[in-house]
Amino acid sequence: QMPRGNLETIHHRALVLARLRHYLDSLMFKETFECMRKLRINLNLIYDHNPKVFLDNVSLFVKQIESVNYINLFLTELKEEDVTTTMYPVPAASHKQPLLVPQVKKVDIICDAMRAAMENIDSHKYCLSILTSYVRKTKPELEIALQKVHELRENPPSAKAVSADEALKYLLFLVDVNELYDHSLGTYDFDLVVMVAEKSQKDPKEYLPFLNKLKKMETNYQRYTIDKHLKKYKKALGHLCKCGPEHFVEFLNLVKDQNLYTEALKLYPAGSDEYKAINDAYGEYLSSKHQYEQAGLIFARCGSHEKALDAFAACNSWQQVMCMASHLQYPANKMAALARSVAGKLVEQRKQTAAAVLLEQYAEDYEEAIVLLLEGAAWEEALRLIHKYKRLDMLETNLKPALIDAHRNQMVFLDSQQSTFTRHKHRLSVVRDLKEKARLGLLDEEVAEGPDSDLFSDTSSIMTASDMSGKYSHSNSRISSRTSKNRRKAERKKHSLKEGSPLEDIALLEALGEIIRGTDKLRYEVHSLLKVLVLYEYDSQARELQKIYDELLHLMENSIPEIWTLNVTPGTAASVLGPNSTANSIMTSYQQQGKINNPTQDAELFVAPKLMKSFQWKLSLLQ
Amino acid sequence: QMPRGNLETIHHRALVLARLRHYLDSLMFKETFECMRKLRINLNLIYDHNPKVFLDNVSLFVKQIESVNYINLFLTELKEEDVTTTMYPVPAASHKQPLLVPQVKKVDIICDAMRAAMENIDSHKYCLSILTSYVRKTKPELEIALQKVHELRENPPSAKAVSADEALKYLLFLVDVNELYDHSLGTYDFDLVVMVAEKSQKDPKEYLPFLNKLKKMETNYQRYTIDKHLKKYKKALGHLCKCGPEHFVEFLNLVKDQNLYTEALKLYPAGSDEYKAINDAYGEYLSSKHQYEQAGLIFARCGSHEKALDAFAACNSWQQVMCMASHLQYPANKMAALARSVAGKLVEQRKQTAAAVLLEQYAEDYEEAIVLLLEGAAWEEALRLIHKYKRLDMLETNLKPALIDAHRNQMVFLDSQQSTFTRHKHRLSVVRDLKEKARLGLLDEEVAEGPDSDLFSDTSSIMTASDMSGKYSHSNSRISSRTSKNRRKAERKKHSLKEGSPLEDIALLEALGEIIRGTDKLRYEVHSLLKVLVLYEYDSQARELQKIYDELLHLMENSIPEIWTLNVTPGTAASVLGPNSTANSIMTSYQQQGKINNPTQDAELFVAPKLMKSFQWKLSLLQ
Repeated sequence: QMPRGNLETIHHRALVLARLRHYLDSLMFKETFECMRKLRINLNLIYDHNPKVFLDNVSLFVKQIESVNYINLFLTELKEEDVTTTMYPVPAASHKQPLLVPQVKKVDIICDAMRAAMENIDSHKYCLSILTSYVRKTKPELEIALQKVHELRENPPSAKAVSADEALKYLLFLVDVNELYDHSLGTYDFDLVVMVAEKSQKDPKEYLPFLNKLKKMETNYQRYTIDKHLKKYKKALGHLCKCGPEHFVEFLNLVKDQNLYTEALKLYPAGSDEYKAINDAYGEYLSSKHQYEQAGLIFARCGSHEKALDAFAACNSWQQVMCMASHLQYPANKMAALARSVAGKLVEQRKQTAAAVLLEQYAEDYEEAIVLLLEGAAWEEALRLIHKYKRLDMLETNLKPALIDAHRNQMVFLDSQQSTFTRHKHRLSVVRDLKEKARLGLLDEEVAEGPDSDLFSDTSSIMTASDMSGKYSHSNSRISSRTSKNRRKAERKKHSLKEGSPLEDIALLEALGEIIRGTDKLRYEVHSLLKVLVLYEYDSQARELQKIYDELLHLMENSIPEIWTLNVTPGTAASVLGPNSTANSIMTSYQQQGKINNPTQDAELFVAPKLMKSFQWKLSLLQ
Repeated sequence: QMPRGNLETIHHRALVLARLRHYLDSLMFKETFECMRKLRINLNLIYDHNPKVFLDNVSLFVKQIESVNYINLFLTELKEEDVTTTMYPVPAASHKQPLLVPQVKKVDIICDAMRAAMENIDSHKYCLSILTSYVRKTKPELEIALQKVHELRENPPSAKAVSADEALKYLLFLVDVNELYDHSLGTYDFDLVVMVAEKSQKDPKEYLPFLNKLKKMETNYQRYTIDKHLKKYKKALGHLCKCGPEHFVEFLNLVKDQNLYTEALKLYPAGSDEYKAINDAYGEYLSSKHQYEQAGLIFARCGSHEKALDAFAACNSWQQVMCMASHLQYPANKMAALARSVAGKLVEQRKQTAAAVLLEQYAEDYEEAIVLLLEGAAWEEALRLIHKYKRLDMLETNLKPALIDAHRNQMVFLDSQQSTFTRHKHRLSVVRDLKEKARLGLLDEEVAEGPDSDLFSDTSSIMTASDMSGKYSHSNSRISSRTSKNRRKAERKKHSLKEGSPLEDIALLEALGEIIRGTDKLRYEVHSLLKVLVLYEYDSQARELQKIYDELLHLMENSIPEIWTLNVTPGTAASVLGPNSTANSIMTSYQQQGKINNPTQDAELFVAPKLMKSFQWKLSLLQ
């Protein structure tokens, strides 16, 4: 059929695609290709239509298409996109066989398959297409492409075939000249470099001195210099390390500059001086990044025990500190001083039990060890040391006063938890009522003043949880640390407990959850205190504590269904966005609250805390 | 107005109640009472209509009603129920003032108020009503009522007033005679007892010998005997303890019989022999109830250190065991043997760190202590002891093999977690799809075989989590303990993971949550292992472990939104109860699952586990 004019070029796309699919299914690649070229159909369809079939018939495809230009066209048009899902959707009942190698890119699969086919058929004829297949890979393999060109120059093929010159020109057409020049350098083949440089219209005054300097170098150092020039630092390290110990300073500097410690360590045997030096530098680096524990490990590995000790001390790895001191063969008095200093820092972090081990075992200061254990409420361990070192006098002078102190502090703490809890709970029901009324539209214009005055009038609830927690005496350090922790926690609360704040109900829910969790967590501590109180016959105090704590736990347990009602879901949070809100009010509320956190994080607010009911903290003898 | 016949007695209740409310609001008690009596309206309304107003006007009420019989009628008809919420609902706009003393019972409030008013007005006239007010209390105050009768007999009032005889008869009319007799005994007033006994038509041959025997006794012993007769054991103890040391055996027997140890302890001073004897008995009792720790405390209090030691040993309170041994002044070799035996039991409970302290400090077996610490993966503490006791040889012989072992076990465990997780996750999506299809009714008759075959065909998922966890070597005791724990956990799972079981999706959700929590919890353990691996230059193993664990955590984190989708709520559990289910299928599913747990407990299954992302477990040097 001869073309019959303009009208003929209008094709219905669906019909065309149907025809192409038919062609492809029949392996009529030639017809497909020409049709697609003529009608500007994206060539990716040849593969995407049925990847498996295409790959099984790559040779047939190459043979049918035959033209180098056509093949180059096909290769350059390849994209990762699957055009059967984007541009040319497939009709329902197609039988496409997907390839189950998702980690390999489509373009790479095709390039590799095409290249294999072409090299098989006629590597000379398809020389340029083969080059294209290297260049087109998602990580272009320019070195190999250049190598191919170099081979052409070394062993020129028959006159009919593509010359090295032509091939290089073609490559320069495909790839930026500077990039190609860098990659030619990367082959360490100066012939190749000069070849590319000459074609590149680069100024020889610019590159020749550099190349000449390189040529004079020892091979490994030369390659290192090139790698470094090309910013391939890992490769550079590999070459530099082969240049012998006289270059180790340069090596270490490169490692430090480029932060390549782990790579560098792989290049030297574990026992060597160089290995040690790299580790040492690594340790310094980690220390400078405040990664003291890891720095300590690295220092310890390379025998820098002094530095390791300092690093471990900086992160309170007290056991490792003592190991290092032992390595350094500290005399007893130095060991004791070290133990005291580390213990002091542990106490600051409320780690009295560890500090006590140091004082007992390295400083042999049993009394201070016991004092620390009492301070840390480690009652049984304190008793053990009191008996072990026959310091029964400390039962009266230290243990009993500490017990009474701890009891009083617990009582005060539980009392404050109880009152904050009750206040928040009450306030929550008030806020919910008001919100519900607002939702039902009961608050019309004339009562509009109501909610605000109500929201602010409840004077008893003006104190916040954080105010309360700081209210009582701080004599027992453990408990005062708890309150300051609470305070810090309160400060970074997401929602404001301020009365009338738009998300006050959420803030209350959050605060109530925290109080419950905080109180529930005390089971172990209270249990342990109760036992020692009973042991020293402080029965009434123990009974009182057990009663108060039990009542508080019951209050909380019974309040949970009331606070976390079934219909409290993240949805209610949106009630600030209810019918009564305006764009402005919503803006204001969001600005007040800061950025609203992602809903899944907030979601846990709407789940009732789970109490540790399985732990039997109560003493039956106190009931 | 004169009565005009039958028709007149038909009243509209709402009208009647309205009239009564009006009377009550106007304090017209007389009219109210007569109307209510005539029309059989429950007399509680008098109070319930407006408790505050009634209580403020009790005297007026008594004066208006005046009749002793009427007052008795009113008192005997009192119930806790609020009739304005049950029998006679209040119209919308009533202004009832509720009393805010919910802990005091309504009946008691009224009885006390009425009695005060009547005694004020004329205690002789209202004598019987006053008695009624004692009897009607929720805890009848029969002793006081009897005392009143006794007073009447001692000081007979004017002839016009009620005589003691009449009063007693009235009491016997209100209260069962045996109960009254017991209460008269409880007053320890034999006049009263005989008075009641005579009126009671009891056989004098029955009660006189008993009373005569009692009369001969010393007062405290007499009262003890009466208390015991009336089964008032706590009161009996109080009286018996005043009878002097010759009765202590009897006392102790009563304490043991009635399990009144804590009450008994309050009756003797803390240092006394009796106090010690009671404590001792208490300890025996607690031991017999397997409350060894409390038994130990009680024995220790009373100086029974030997028994205390045994009790503490029975509950592995190892520190207390050593304290008791110290009290008993065990020689070094006995101390060492004790330490070894307790350590052995601690190891059985996977408490290697505590066991190591015992071996180190009491048996001075440093090598075994270090071995235990390695077994317990307490790497840093093991290193500390290795250095402290200069056993660097154990680094090669014990620490490194233990490290390699721990690494391998962690790898195997993580691998099994990963595969179980992936399998369950896949299965969950299959089950959900099937349920969704079933819900949409896509599975009609002809595909009805589909779900079952599909539900069972997925052979890869036939193994359950518990099968898997037992699959690998058990060489590292800590990890094998973990798997056996898992197995036990799996056994007590609420829902069946069996394929096709009606709540399989819930079971999968539960299993997935457990796997995630179990894996997430390993952060500390893995972190600690990684550090020691790095210290001893097992970099590749450390890197491998970090990579695998990191990937697993990421897999879990990324899967969470998929598993705990927003529309997974407890509601979906009900899909077994969907439109396709029949009464039989529901029954079967419930029987298969056993009793369905309460929904709030199950609710936590529907909340995604929270990962401990804040803990930096990874070592940057391994990246």
